[in-house]
Amino acid sequence: MAGRILDCISSPADLKLLSDSDLKILAREIREEIITVTSKTGGHVASSLGAVETILAVYSLINAPKDKFIFDVGHQAYAHKIITGRLGQFHTLRQYGGISGFPRPDESPYDVHPSGHASDSISIGVGMAKARQLRGTDEKIVVLIGDASISGGMAFEALNTIGQLQLPMVIILNDNEMSISKNVGALVKHLGQVRASARYRQARDQAQEILEDGGPLGKSFVSLGRNVKESMKQFVVPHTMMFEQLGILCTPPINGHSIPEIKSVLRTALAADGPVLVHLVTRKGAGYGPAERDPERFHGVGPYDIKTGAAVGKPKTVPTYTDVFGKAIVREAERDKRIVAITAAMRDGTGLRPFSEKFPQRFVDVGIAEENAIGMASGLAIGGFKPVVAIYSTFLQRAVDQTIIDASLPKLNVAFAIDRAGVVGADGATHHGLFDISYMRMIPNMRVITPSDEAELTYALHTALELGGPVAIRYPRGAAMGVPVPDEPKMLPLGKGDIRREGTDVAILAFGNMVKPSLEAAERLQDEDGISARVVDMRWAKPIDPDAVSHAAKTKLIITVEDGIIAGGAGEGVIEVMARLGETTPVITLGVNDRFVQHGAVNLLMRDLGLDADGIRASILKKLAELEDSDA
Amino acid sequence: MAGRILDCISSPADLKLLSDSDLKILAREIREEIITVTSKTGGHVASSLGAVETILAVYSLINAPKDKFIFDVGHQAYAHKIITGRLGQFHTLRQYGGISGFPRPDESPYDVHPSGHASDSISIGVGMAKARQLRGTDEKIVVLIGDASISGGMAFEALNTIGQLQLPMVIILNDNEMSISKNVGALVKHLGQVRASARYRQARDQAQEILEDGGPLGKSFVSLGRNVKESMKQFVVPHTMMFEQLGILCTPPINGHSIPEIKSVLRTALAADGPVLVHLVTRKGAGYGPAERDPERFHGVGPYDIKTGAAVGKPKTVPTYTDVFGKAIVREAERDKRIVAITAAMRDGTGLRPFSEKFPQRFVDVGIAEENAIGMASGLAIGGFKPVVAIYSTFLQRAVDQTIIDASLPKLNVAFAIDRAGVVGADGATHHGLFDISYMRMIPNMRVITPSDEAELTYALHTALELGGPVAIRYPRGAAMGVPVPDEPKMLPLGKGDIRREGTDVAILAFGNMVKPSLEAAERLQDEDGISARVVDMRWAKPIDPDAVSHAAKTKLIITVEDGIIAGGAGEGVIEVMARLGETTPVITLGVNDRFVQHGAVNLLMRDLGLDADGIRASILKKLAELEDSDA
Repeated sequence: MAGRILDCISSPADLKLLSDSDLKILAREIREEIITVTSKTGGHVASSLGAVETILAVYSLINAPKDKFIFDVGHQAYAHKIITGRLGQFHTLRQYGGISGFPRPDESPYDVHPSGHASDSISIGVGMAKARQLRGTDEKIVVLIGDASISGGMAFEALNTIGQLQLPMVIILNDNEMSISKNVGALVKHLGQVRASARYRQARDQAQEILEDGGPLGKSFVSLGRNVKESMKQFVVPHTMMFEQLGILCTPPINGHSIPEIKSVLRTALAADGPVLVHLVTRKGAGYGPAERDPERFHGVGPYDIKTGAAVGKPKTVPTYTDVFGKAIVREAERDKRIVAITAAMRDGTGLRPFSEKFPQRFVDVGIAEENAIGMASGLAIGGFKPVVAIYSTFLQRAVDQTIIDASLPKLNVAFAIDRAGVVGADGATHHGLFDISYMRMIPNMRVITPSDEAELTYALHTALELGGPVAIRYPRGAAMGVPVPDEPKMLPLGKGDIRREGTDVAILAFGNMVKPSLEAAERLQDEDGISARVVDMRWAKPIDPDAVSHAAKTKLIITVEDGIIAGGAGEGVIEVMARLGETTPVITLGVNDRFVQHGAVNLLMRDLGLDADGIRASILKKLAELEDSDA
Repeated sequence: MAGRILDCISSPADLKLLSDSDLKILAREIREEIITVTSKTGGHVASSLGAVETILAVYSLINAPKDKFIFDVGHQAYAHKIITGRLGQFHTLRQYGGISGFPRPDESPYDVHPSGHASDSISIGVGMAKARQLRGTDEKIVVLIGDASISGGMAFEALNTIGQLQLPMVIILNDNEMSISKNVGALVKHLGQVRASARYRQARDQAQEILEDGGPLGKSFVSLGRNVKESMKQFVVPHTMMFEQLGILCTPPINGHSIPEIKSVLRTALAADGPVLVHLVTRKGAGYGPAERDPERFHGVGPYDIKTGAAVGKPKTVPTYTDVFGKAIVREAERDKRIVAITAAMRDGTGLRPFSEKFPQRFVDVGIAEENAIGMASGLAIGGFKPVVAIYSTFLQRAVDQTIIDASLPKLNVAFAIDRAGVVGADGATHHGLFDISYMRMIPNMRVITPSDEAELTYALHTALELGGPVAIRYPRGAAMGVPVPDEPKMLPLGKGDIRREGTDVAILAFGNMVKPSLEAAERLQDEDGISARVVDMRWAKPIDPDAVSHAAKTKLIITVEDGIIAGGAGEGVIEVMARLGETTPVITLGVNDRFVQHGAVNLLMRDLGLDADGIRASILKKLAELEDSDA
């Protein structure tokens, strides 16, 4: 590794000393670094490889951290991490205690805001541009956004605002060539058309013809600084691009893997005194064969063999909850023609590929557009169908209002399959699903099921579809429990828990993923502490089983356990029922206590949160000791 | 009134028998009815007057309720209510027990979905269009959306989907001429430009020249049924319109007050086999002078004198919370240059007009775009400013994810001024602010203040701005308490309640608006029942004051009172603190118990909810009796 340019880069300022050919070498070194590290740690390989040249070109022109480079989603930022002083820690990527896989302001002054959710970068950028205007300073603001993210409603809202405010800002549209065919929505079709037509023009224009005119709308909206007006003429402006109609000057598609090309266009865009969209065409996985060939698998991947790209590590023996859901919804849909599945750009992530192949007409991918996913589901339900919306817990936060007003107020048959609920692991703070029980429980007409294993998940789905009205099912990321899944799903009795272990001293009321460690804790309490603990799989976070609660109230101590935020969670539901029933048994609510959770292996995070068997047991012993003290 | 056509209309089907000149007469009769009724009841006058011809034209062509007409926001639907069998009840508009001011499916089969929030109609329509495709039926789907609503992210997401799916649907863009200059965002500028240029064309085209070509994008996306292709040529297609680039055929601007013109265009649009946007230009308040002259005041108005339009009824003596907030933020901004105010299309509604006039540079109206409002606030905070986002409680539901990820995870100095919290009255189910305590309380780093009067509101704002980090302040709609507001605001001690009345038998822990009826209940408990009740203004829904709780636990009964949903609310916060402290005093949590609330006068609704002084007293007496029984 001696002699790498990369090892001489301690901050982005160092890039300014490099020639374009040096930058090209550096890009190769960074790719090697990303591949070397992620082959061991896993990570978001394809998008990070696709953004290397973009990141180098931007940092070779701006003065960070005074100038701001804002990422969207942020999983493409590995090159950014590597050149902003984190090369030495890059091998700890996504590991417990290591560096995050996403920009994180408390990790580096170069990380402007906590990226992780799609479509927010332009909005953050507009706010910073407004702040700059008020301060009267002149730092540059560059935001990155992908062709999938830009269809999210929040991005459109922000484009609408920057188009009006006309504050200088460079919006880099990272248009992944590979994703065009896979993304959905008319906007992506539009981008494809623009690219096709502009490419045609570029070829035609090799004779150096320059299109000067911005059209009446372009002219009325875009006012360029005098000194850059001439250089702006180099842009082959695609007048058909819709962003122009919002007052944003757009470049034609540029090769996003040519640092000189990007720099040339960026230099002009950075000098403009209004918003400019720079349209870069990149390839996911660029520069690494296996990722280029299978960018979907290399979007988020575990450890892999560098030569072949094949996954390494122990083969999966237990299916994931996602897989089980994917099978269960196919089986339900075979029986009931009214079932429709909706995803927001996560067909594979939510396990809906088999469904989409078997029932292409009954499958809808709305793209990154969670609000519309719930609105459309509501329309389908009004139209007599039974939509199942499969969305990750953290992304469903985008559609809380639609869940309240469009789906729940009219009590429509919309089922919410909430994947990645609870602690998700390596993706960290922006990706944990900590809030879904709270934001679902507060909604009238809503019911919330928390299956504790894969068999329960299939029952939950069946129950939700038979029960009608809005029903949410929340289940964790990753491998399920390994229990057999019966061919025939059964109905779960509404609002009834399931006693999994009898006990008389204390009662553990556990939700979903927390049933298993609760059972383990109960075993150990019995064996090591001589305490008899009942464990109830509560099954429903709403409605809470009042019989399970009053039964539990006959013990010395009630413990609620959930893998989500305590405020508004299922535990508070239990103590609210206790209050209503007039039960005054001491109670402790275990869960995530008013904090965000960082990244790392799930078992380590759960240990920190006191939500593994050890932690549950320790909390119970501590509270029992307190109770004894106060009795004494 | 004898001889009115209106009195012969029992369902929209009757419109089909009317000539265009009869429909014109009917429109006048409906206007008179709207004005007569709303002059007594108040209501959304301007937008409803603007939509009369649109509604009549649509219903004279479609077969409702088989065909579906979907409203957006829904406050323009009075003509729809009147002709769908509700003329007889129209005088009960917005009254307790009367008909709702918004479409409401449980009120009529013609009300497709519960309108109330902006930007969801297209999404609902796309879902219904997909349902129709799956069923193989052929009903028509017409959705209405205003030029302000269409800039909301959810609308864009739905346009993106319908543009891709190419399912037949007519989207009526209700472009209020009056609002063009007042709305914000580049999209509205764009509409203005389109209108200007197309008008120009229309004039030019009086010689019956017809533009045929749809351009390459139009052609590739829009496939028309063979038999309507010819008639579609009548459209003077404005190729510059951005919706076309999403695959949606657009008409030029049409006079939205000419029933024959609307019908002529609609007839063709309804026959298309893909999505068509019909661009209607209307005037808010059309046909009623006072409303045409002051559409902003007549947007939502109380009872008024028909001749002059002047408000009738008792003049306001006590300022509203909104007014007090508006003054307080000006005073804070005079002291601190870092304060910026953001609204989402509600400058007047949130009291920000004085601020916007005094500090135009520090005021931002993002339009109907709550997600971007929070994103932009986060960017401003990163840039060193102190943004205050003023949004109604029910609309902030649109930005829960941004509040979590963009503002709270990085612990930014964003203040949330949540107006219209609690029960709002006549607007009903879609407008009450029942959920904000729950969705704010669940967020780590967030603090929530619930001022109990206007002086407390000014303290709360000052405290939020001095404290830093994300802070939410929630306060109700309408008149404040009439207490004096001191010139100098003070800091509220973090997480400390304020004992307003001492008492030893029971302790009422009240939040915000519920302090006053709690004090009244305590008076009556003392005077009539001989019960000594403490009343604490808890001030903070997060963090909950542990001292107030443990002090309260020394009484016989704790009562929490809030004007929001119980699940996840402040009361659950109190019992969670009790559990943590090991307090086992009996407790009852008063609030809105897992239900939506309909429309009507606030005092009547609060009585129904048991949240007036009577209800609070009755709950306490009932619980005390139960406790005595169980002791006995």
